[in-house]
Amino acid sequence: MVDFTDVRAAASRIAGIAHRTPVVTSRTIDERTGATVFLKCEQLQRMGAFKFRGAYNRLAQLDAGERRAGVVAYSSGNHAQGVALAAQLLEIPATIVMPRDAPASKLAATRGYGAEVVLYERSEENRALIAQGIAKERGATIVPPYDDERIVAGAGTAVLELLEETGSLDIVIVPVGGGGLFSGSALAAHGVDPTIAVWGVEPEAGNDVQQSLARGERVVIDVPQTIADGLQTQSPGEVTFAVLREHAAGIVTVSDDELIETMRVLFERCKLVVEPSGAAALAAVLSAKIPVAGKRVGLVLSGGNVDRARFASLIA
Amino acid sequence: MVDFTDVRAAASRIAGIAHRTPVVTSRTIDERTGATVFLKCEQLQRMGAFKFRGAYNRLAQLDAGERRAGVVAYSSGNHAQGVALAAQLLEIPATIVMPRDAPASKLAATRGYGAEVVLYERSEENRALIAQGIAKERGATIVPPYDDERIVAGAGTAVLELLEETGSLDIVIVPVGGGGLFSGSALAAHGVDPTIAVWGVEPEAGNDVQQSLARGERVVIDVPQTIADGLQTQSPGEVTFAVLREHAAGIVTVSDDELIETMRVLFERCKLVVEPSGAAALAAVLSAKIPVAGKRVGLVLSGGNVDRARFASLIA
Repeated sequence: MVDFTDVRAAASRIAGIAHRTPVVTSRTIDERTGATVFLKCEQLQRMGAFKFRGAYNRLAQLDAGERRAGVVAYSSGNHAQGVALAAQLLEIPATIVMPRDAPASKLAATRGYGAEVVLYERSEENRALIAQGIAKERGATIVPPYDDERIVAGAGTAVLELLEETGSLDIVIVPVGGGGLFSGSALAAHGVDPTIAVWGVEPEAGNDVQQSLARGERVVIDVPQTIADGLQTQSPGEVTFAVLREHAAGIVTVSDDELIETMRVLFERCKLVVEPSGAAALAAVLSAKIPVAGKRVGLVLSGGNVDRARFASLIA
Repeated sequence: MVDFTDVRAAASRIAGIAHRTPVVTSRTIDERTGATVFLKCEQLQRMGAFKFRGAYNRLAQLDAGERRAGVVAYSSGNHAQGVALAAQLLEIPATIVMPRDAPASKLAATRGYGAEVVLYERSEENRALIAQGIAKERGATIVPPYDDERIVAGAGTAVLELLEETGSLDIVIVPVGGGGLFSGSALAAHGVDPTIAVWGVEPEAGNDVQQSLARGERVVIDVPQTIADGLQTQSPGEVTFAVLREHAAGIVTVSDDELIETMRVLFERCKLVVEPSGAAALAAVLSAKIPVAGKRVGLVLSGGNVDRARFASLIA
């Protein structure tokens, strides 16, 4: 099973390639919460989200034959760009299966990193089957968005850096989709200090990981209807769930309105652009869903990929 | 005359009080320019702009009697908030003379730092006279926005930090209002390495400093009509002009459209919020007004205080 050693190895592997993103503080946030809050700015990561860490850590471990055969991923979001950029840097052919109605900016960014984009009809076709067909035909490796030990270990490096910068923390909080960032962060935090409480935050519209942890087994839900497009997962992964059962302090949920309000606070008080998913951890703190008063709290702003027009309408 | 020693002394004075703001890089910007560009993020400074550095450095050097009598400043922009915050931290009474039509958010922010706000009618009253009246009545000290050696020295600390982080640079570029940041940056850069070319950027609508340097004397212009509200000065200061005659490599101008386009690049590619004035230095680079190809270039993003609705309409 993936452990702290893997996170440290991933940190060595991405050193000098991924950005060591800044950690920002805000007196306004500290005053509102009564805590000392550190914001790990993964929206300032390459390709605009923490996803690059796991993608690079995964692709860097392919052998020569696997590299020649290439990689396949399916995603309409940050995972697509993370895999495309990592593949470009490692000179590995990449094919990304994306919905035909994906934002033009995301299609352009993925192609801009040199990946081949295969479009599908969201309503009619199954993207996993398309990806599997391509992988089989070419002998290519499918890169899953979170349910993979090397993706988890790579994701954990953000919190490792955070702790190196802040020193001791009482609480670490991260957004939760399929649990890749959450499980990696928990391994990193507990590798440094087993007493840190590691919390996850899901959208109110879909708490698959919260339900799964409560029941002790992986629950599958409908696709959550939320503005947090990076968190619209239906179930935790096998790898991530196994880690979370052991390491998670708990999960809370936030509403879309709480995400928007938090994006506005980050814009006005911190001059930071985050996408809705990226604001989830801070939203949980600002809406007092996790008890943080008097504590030293580190949280991950996980991404900043949001179209200009959408951001404008959300903050206006 | 103010010199590098003063900048270093200011750096000691603000250490642990001002943020040591992050320096960000962007491969997109490097590819577009053929340079290696470092962005010093002063929009992430306390109160959202570099102005805090100079204000704190000025107020910290008041003696006990001057502190008791308080300070007065006039500004509709970042200087107001910089003085108000510095005064709050040093427990000095502050009065800020602001136009009645100043944005509600700026009035609220200034009052939020504990300053007394005196309103005036922009079209009918002279703010300098009002401030002088208050200063005389109370024995208070007027804190000018840029034409002051201690304000200049404080402003220079941003470029001092930038150089400490980046190592050697060929070019430093900053926005230019009255020249406080420009002259402080030039002193800092040339204190470290006299061969650095230090450029300033003014709005196309009002190039008072460019004209002044060309003529060899301080020129006064009409209030420039530009979206860069932090750069609407009519003349360089005496202190700043004396420094710039000796240290400035040159000045270029940028249009409002170039500022808006640069704000969009910073939003989309860097996930950073800057106000129009704060984008001026990068705008000059992206519009190829300063030759940077093959060079190591440091520039200051000087502030991020822009209303939500205004930012939304500018980037949409």
